[in-house]
Amino acid sequence: MDVTRDFATAAEQLAHVGRRFDARGWVLGTSGNLSVVIDRNPLRLAITRSGAPKGDLTADAIIEVDEGGAAVLPDAGRPSAETLLHLEIARVRAAGAVLHTHSIWSTVLSAQYLPAAGIAIEGYEMLKGLEGVPTHEHREWIPILENDQDMIRLSGRVRRLLAEHPACHAFLLHRHGLYAWGQTLEQAVRHVEIVEFLLEAVGRTNRHVEDI
Amino acid sequence: MDVTRDFATAAEQLAHVGRRFDARGWVLGTSGNLSVVIDRNPLRLAITRSGAPKGDLTADAIIEVDEGGAAVLPDAGRPSAETLLHLEIARVRAAGAVLHTHSIWSTVLSAQYLPAAGIAIEGYEMLKGLEGVPTHEHREWIPILENDQDMIRLSGRVRRLLAEHPACHAFLLHRHGLYAWGQTLEQAVRHVEIVEFLLEAVGRTNRHVEDI
Amino acid sequence: MDVTRDFATAAEQLAHVGRRFDARGWVLGTSGNLSVVIDRNPLRLAITRSGAPKGDLTADAIIEVDEGGAAVLPDAGRPSAETLLHLEIARVRAAGAVLHTHSIWSTVLSAQYLPAAGIAIEGYEMLKGLEGVPTHEHREWIPILENDQDMIRLSGRVRRLLAEHPACHAFLLHRHGLYAWGQTLEQAVRHVEIVEFLLEAVGRTNRHVEDI
Amino acid sequence: MDVTRDFATAAEQLAHVGRRFDARGWVLGTSGNLSVVIDRNPLRLAITRSGAPKGDLTADAIIEVDEGGAAVLPDAGRPSAETLLHLEIARVRAAGAVLHTHSIWSTVLSAQYLPAAGIAIEGYEMLKGLEGVPTHEHREWIPILENDQDMIRLSGRVRRLLAEHPACHAFLLHRHGLYAWGQTLEQAVRHVEIVEFLLEAVGRTNRHVEDI
Repeated sequence: MDVTRDFATAAEQLAHVGRRFDARGWVLGTSGNLSVVIDRNPLRLAITRSGAPKGDLTADAIIEVDEGGAAVLPDAGRPSAETLLHLEIARVRAAGAVLHTHSIWSTVLSAQYLPAAGIAIEGYEMLKGLEGVPTHEHREWIPILENDQDMIRLSGRVRRLLAEHPACHAFLLHRHGLYAWGQTLEQAVRHVEIVEFLLEAVGRTNRHVEDI
Repeated sequence: MDVTRDFATAAEQLAHVGRRFDARGWVLGTSGNLSVVIDRNPLRLAITRSGAPKGDLTADAIIEVDEGGAAVLPDAGRPSAETLLHLEIARVRAAGAVLHTHSIWSTVLSAQYLPAAGIAIEGYEMLKGLEGVPTHEHREWIPILENDQDMIRLSGRVRRLLAEHPACHAFLLHRHGLYAWGQTLEQAVRHVEIVEFLLEAVGRTNRHVEDI
Repeated sequence: MDVTRDFATAAEQLAHVGRRFDARGWVLGTSGNLSVVIDRNPLRLAITRSGAPKGDLTADAIIEVDEGGAAVLPDAGRPSAETLLHLEIARVRAAGAVLHTHSIWSTVLSAQYLPAAGIAIEGYEMLKGLEGVPTHEHREWIPILENDQDMIRLSGRVRRLLAEHPACHAFLLHRHGLYAWGQTLEQAVRHVEIVEFLLEAVGRTNRHVEDI
Repeated sequence: MDVTRDFATAAEQLAHVGRRFDARGWVLGTSGNLSVVIDRNPLRLAITRSGAPKGDLTADAIIEVDEGGAAVLPDAGRPSAETLLHLEIARVRAAGAVLHTHSIWSTVLSAQYLPAAGIAIEGYEMLKGLEGVPTHEHREWIPILENDQDMIRLSGRVRRLLAEHPACHAFLLHRHGLYAWGQTLEQAVRHVEIVEFLLEAVGRTNRHVEDI
């Protein structure tokens, strides 16, 4: 089984990822949220507490939640408002970790490309770092969803989006950043970094296009 | 009471915030100034010394000032030139901490939007991190004030601005950066990071607008 | 002889370089690969393992390979997919180290300038940091190669490119980043940093050109 | 006297400044050079060795030079190629420290504004951090000199430039970055950070100008 890792280890690893993303400016304020699957059946996640600064995740900033999104321990505090999205992704994609970053470029491009409902990226070697992609000639579609404060409604839309785009490795919420995932936390981190890179490359390329 | 924290703790926490903002390039040179309220009645602040580099705030770089802006201890050095602005905000907003950053994007946008006397930002999930904002559909108005070297005149203008915009979480001084605050230092830091993020997102979006 | 350094020292030095490039965002995901020559006759490299994150190169993330690109030790894992390119460069240029970064600017410019098959850079003082360049009046040609997943074919093209451009210090792969090298690891690092700087300067200059 | 500091202390302080500038990407490759005056009469500098990476200035990377620019100790290595410029500035401005950074923005703007032979910056609060400037209404002229590999000729031009612009706090060399100085090393660091900030603000503003 792929989720034998215990809660304490998971919390420590999420803190490490939080520091890394914070240094890159991808989780400013208390934005972003990070989770790993710690049990599969029934589904359990270790997920960041609502409002915790991701660059300094102390032990009490990681909460164990059940398949309904409720904290397992009574005094654990409030899990991330977006816990339902994490659970949905973990279930549909059999992901071992789900990461949400909130970078400048993912935010800017999610608005620019909203009319097209997504961004097509192809021809970049970096695409090969996405699981199962053998060549830079791959065309990755990064869908964009309208943002919503109703998490039940939004998680339903995420479920449909994942069904419609079975090959996608990540999606954007409009002016709300990036969701990516992986079979392991390591793979999820790689996917986040690759998609953040690609979005920045596309964003900076757009401005150059007329220049040459 | 919300300000039981002692001066030594306050100084240490401000040093931590200074290092964080310095790493992001938001307090270059000796720009920026940081304060926390350490007593409410009468009002007392722990505030950065004038000319102190914010990335390396030693114990003697934090000064205790009274409600008139004078250093409490005779040999404490000169408090930040903008101490009166901090006191005004702490009083009018009942803030527990006031932070002034001087980033590239807040400086650039303060000039671009000066003719409009402010920047309206809406539709960003990041807005939800501002205290009391329940949805990304919120419209935040970030007012911009003309810069002034006369601190008595400027603090009077800040007082009127805060009265005119009772819901605002931050304001800009023209080509002089950002002021934000919070009930606690943690909240003030969050507000700074959120507004800095939003300004950069707006700044980078402007340049893209024609591209698609 | 210039390659008396032992494998353990080489691995440690590559880890140091990896952390440095990672901090600059030049090896996101698990992109980039780094090698040093540890023997010349027959040629042997210490090179990063395929898929290793460059900011955290542990001892088992560096692999010794022979002149054919095969791992010397049976259980060493899979060397970088681009090992053949490193060997080609080490051979043709008698390089002591070969470094491949995958930055935003090298990626963006590799696409912009692909129609010209390269980028001419001159008039920059930074050029003087390239080995053998005595003046900023030097004109450096940075060739761009089409990307390819067939490493045997690609390494053949690299060989021809190096023969056609005997004075070049670096080249780009289309949407795949930068290759640079040096007689020593220190020199190779310097070359990477200089070329990355120059590409960013050219990229940012392009956008300004019409502004004045 | 203002230069009682000993060589060892000076070297340690320059190493600290080097790490700081390196983290900001202002001294990539082995670019940039840093000096402090350690004696005034006759003039002596502690200056970085030619080709030393500024982010990792070990003890042997700082060299004591006399008023002619020669190393005081026989085996000290070669001082920075631009030692004559440091000596010129230290003499004419009675500076206690001279710092040369080589950032993207100073490089890009030195080319953009070369036809005007300088950049006028006014209206920025950050200007007040320059020694002797009481208000943001100050107009700072940052002259730009053509680059030159002949250091005797170039130092002559620097001398004339400093005489023609007795109030300037810094100057640019064309596509070669920034020179700034101060009465103390602390002040010189402040001046560098302020001018780098202002150049980036001007650079990013230029691109926005048409947008609103």
